[in-house]
Amino acid sequence: MTAIDLNSDLGEGYGAWRMGDDAAMLDIVSSANVACGFHGGDPATLLRTLRAAAERGVVVGAHVSYPDLVGFGRRAMDVASEDLIADVIYQIGALKALAQAAGARVAYVKPHGALYNAIATDARQGRDVVQAIRMADPDLALMGLAGSPLLPLARDMGLGVVAEAFADRAYTPEGTLVSRREAGAVLHDADRIADRMLRLARHGEIEAVDGSVIRVEAVSICVHGDSPGAVAIARAVRARLQGEGVSIRSFVTAG
Amino acid sequence: MTAIDLNSDLGEGYGAWRMGDDAAMLDIVSSANVACGFHGGDPATLLRTLRAAAERGVVVGAHVSYPDLVGFGRRAMDVASEDLIADVIYQIGALKALAQAAGARVAYVKPHGALYNAIATDARQGRDVVQAIRMADPDLALMGLAGSPLLPLARDMGLGVVAEAFADRAYTPEGTLVSRREAGAVLHDADRIADRMLRLARHGEIEAVDGSVIRVEAVSICVHGDSPGAVAIARAVRARLQGEGVSIRSFVTAG
Amino acid sequence: MTAIDLNSDLGEGYGAWRMGDDAAMLDIVSSANVACGFHGGDPATLLRTLRAAAERGVVVGAHVSYPDLVGFGRRAMDVASEDLIADVIYQIGALKALAQAAGARVAYVKPHGALYNAIATDARQGRDVVQAIRMADPDLALMGLAGSPLLPLARDMGLGVVAEAFADRAYTPEGTLVSRREAGAVLHDADRIADRMLRLARHGEIEAVDGSVIRVEAVSICVHGDSPGAVAIARAVRARLQGEGVSIRSFVTAG
Amino acid sequence: MTAIDLNSDLGEGYGAWRMGDDAAMLDIVSSANVACGFHGGDPATLLRTLRAAAERGVVVGAHVSYPDLVGFGRRAMDVASEDLIADVIYQIGALKALAQAAGARVAYVKPHGALYNAIATDARQGRDVVQAIRMADPDLALMGLAGSPLLPLARDMGLGVVAEAFADRAYTPEGTLVSRREAGAVLHDADRIADRMLRLARHGEIEAVDGSVIRVEAVSICVHGDSPGAVAIARAVRARLQGEGVSIRSFVTAG
Repeated sequence: MTAIDLNSDLGEGYGAWRMGDDAAMLDIVSSANVACGFHGGDPATLLRTLRAAAERGVVVGAHVSYPDLVGFGRRAMDVASEDLIADVIYQIGALKALAQAAGARVAYVKPHGALYNAIATDARQGRDVVQAIRMADPDLALMGLAGSPLLPLARDMGLGVVAEAFADRAYTPEGTLVSRREAGAVLHDADRIADRMLRLARHGEIEAVDGSVIRVEAVSICVHGDSPGAVAIARAVRARLQGEGVSIRSFVTAG
Repeated sequence: MTAIDLNSDLGEGYGAWRMGDDAAMLDIVSSANVACGFHGGDPATLLRTLRAAAERGVVVGAHVSYPDLVGFGRRAMDVASEDLIADVIYQIGALKALAQAAGARVAYVKPHGALYNAIATDARQGRDVVQAIRMADPDLALMGLAGSPLLPLARDMGLGVVAEAFADRAYTPEGTLVSRREAGAVLHDADRIADRMLRLARHGEIEAVDGSVIRVEAVSICVHGDSPGAVAIARAVRARLQGEGVSIRSFVTAG
Repeated sequence: MTAIDLNSDLGEGYGAWRMGDDAAMLDIVSSANVACGFHGGDPATLLRTLRAAAERGVVVGAHVSYPDLVGFGRRAMDVASEDLIADVIYQIGALKALAQAAGARVAYVKPHGALYNAIATDARQGRDVVQAIRMADPDLALMGLAGSPLLPLARDMGLGVVAEAFADRAYTPEGTLVSRREAGAVLHDADRIADRMLRLARHGEIEAVDGSVIRVEAVSICVHGDSPGAVAIARAVRARLQGEGVSIRSFVTAG
Repeated sequence: MTAIDLNSDLGEGYGAWRMGDDAAMLDIVSSANVACGFHGGDPATLLRTLRAAAERGVVVGAHVSYPDLVGFGRRAMDVASEDLIADVIYQIGALKALAQAAGARVAYVKPHGALYNAIATDARQGRDVVQAIRMADPDLALMGLAGSPLLPLARDMGLGVVAEAFADRAYTPEGTLVSRREAGAVLHDADRIADRMLRLARHGEIEAVDGSVIRVEAVSICVHGDSPGAVAIARAVRARLQGEGVSIRSFVTAG
């Protein structure tokens, strides 16, 4: 592979509150998962973020969430299908209108936080999200964890999918993420992370926690920007990939 | 005039809470001002409302509001232009996506409550709303009070406009609404209201509180459905107009 | 038993939205579970409700909830202990201050909706709620389902408890409520319900769905007021109990 | 004067969002205006803040606001008396219960943002706030701008008052704050600010923008902590005052 996508969560401020270093990350990534107001992202913050993404040619994904501002969308919620479908359509539409006003392009949907985790295993909620995307705009792809059963489910329902890997997370031999409750789940060494992502981009391989090598078919790498250390890691991943001849390019434009 | 539009506020429930008799009103009106979540209307309620509107061929307007759920959008708020513009775009986009999913057509924007009142006189906020509509979708028209300076302002900025009259409100000799704080501001006699609206539809005239006759160039009549009495008045207006040969038709389709 | 308490959920309107017939219910019950703003009940609605309760000498309970307005507190949420404890204290304090302003007495806490259901089986969340009540005001009792393990847990942690039964719900032979997903879970015949509650008040017995008779040690009966039918049932329960010599009295004052 | 109070706004984070450096400010001030959830401050953030205040013996004020999270309580809102009174009682009660759980003492109320500005001139809203405080807890004092007509109004209604000055704001010759829209309204030179506050503490004088000297009868000085620069200024004010023999002490305990 001579090109890979880098994605990150952006636009997660709310009113007077800031979150992460959006400006720095927009110079690093090729895809921006932009909040849609349900876990963060008031409309004015979103519009500013989308304009900055448009200026840099960064492709936008709708980072849809459960309606849980105070919990930042990180708490599991038992949302009925009727509500979940409508919530996702609402958020996609809101973001698309702001993106159009900003000259940015919304090309995919990436569920956030607890919803992301839920649909990796909860097929009912997964189908709800896929159906909502199809109802809102069937040209949008769904971004999800490489190897997750969600991706074939979405493909079977007629949606384009984008498989992603996480730069700073340890993997089990089965190809799932090591739970954050376990030691070593989150990686902090920028060099090591960059090495791992280079191997992923070149060979589709990641070394799991037990030393075994697993195949991870990802076309995008998720990096974080919520702390200065996280931004530095993201920058290191980008530099290593580019230094070794791997272009950073949106999966939309990656040929 | 052989046809006129009837519009009403719909989709204003929120979660477990109901508001008004949407089903009854959808059989009366030709245009539905559907809430967008900021003063009422959670996504699932909106989707149900939009489906019901689509089934009856009722045209939809985005009923955008200040962000004030607990105040139902009825409280004056000093919202900065950057926020107001983004808030309006966000709401229009959310409603349009739900409408598309429901097979309904969003053809116009009608600001709600305190925002409606503000932009009738506050040119800064009026320009913000007009600009937001243009940024979200320049094909949408702006519905406002017939005779208000907002309408020429919007037209000058390149937007289509829809002038409306209020069925159950008394008018001053200057063509403005009598303030709700004054006695007689709200009319309750269904027959009298129907008579007035027939005269409006036929001759573009309304009798003001002082007995003088004023010209009101309205292509739509706003009726309410928030009480059984209000629904009865709306039904009476529709029956009288139709009985006298005036069709009830959306301004979009009215030839 | 010559006296029993009747309790109902009140103050659940929000801003412009109404919920149930609070005035009617306040003439029926001896205890009012008053919302605290997290699933319903804006401050002005709460103050009006508390004043009406105070006028009738109805004792007040804080009807605390997960923070989920749009879901009316009915959706399971995985709330961390730190948040849940603080949320409950916040709500109790808010309601107590409004109650003091209204001259009403807050004597107990009754968790609402999904939180009520969660703590009947989730000991972690149950302990959190009990600890929060103790931190906010250790003189408050906890109202919960008669027979639930929550009540001994709360008692062991030093809290007073109030065991309640549900007037319109079918019971399993094990003394738990039949799930709403099963047929016959909710009773609708006012006469039959009144008979059952008379038997409960007199003998501490309820006939389960299989015809067996179970012991239910309840000092309060929960009745609903969210529909005209529900109000009629509540009125019938009260009338039957009083007609047979059972006083309706708060557990606080019941000697 | 050998002692003066320093107050600052704290606890204004919300869920995952941080605001200001609360830990640093709690080592500087003697009074903490703690948010109450309406413009910032979710319950868990508030409880943490109140515990930190209690550990340092910092006295707490309820920093009540209009209900406007996304606007951070900074937008003028036309809130009806019935709502405003209930909103203020609700917030005071919520904070008091959390403070009791944390072992902190709530001694006063300081309205926030747009509400603070409104009641400096809007007597109706001023009376509403005073009445709400009296209904919630008549032992609480009201903190307001020294020289504002709000303070005598509150005193006449039976409330204790605390007059404050702003460390980093320029004053008009009439003793009001220079509007933030004018150049020079906000001071940035830590030394100069410290000098001004020393003169205030010693002589009750501030030099106005035209060079004239005005009397400002303040028992508390408001300092900010929302940026590293602001914290440094606050620290400089404290150091200068203490270095010149002026104790930093809450107005509650200042003998």
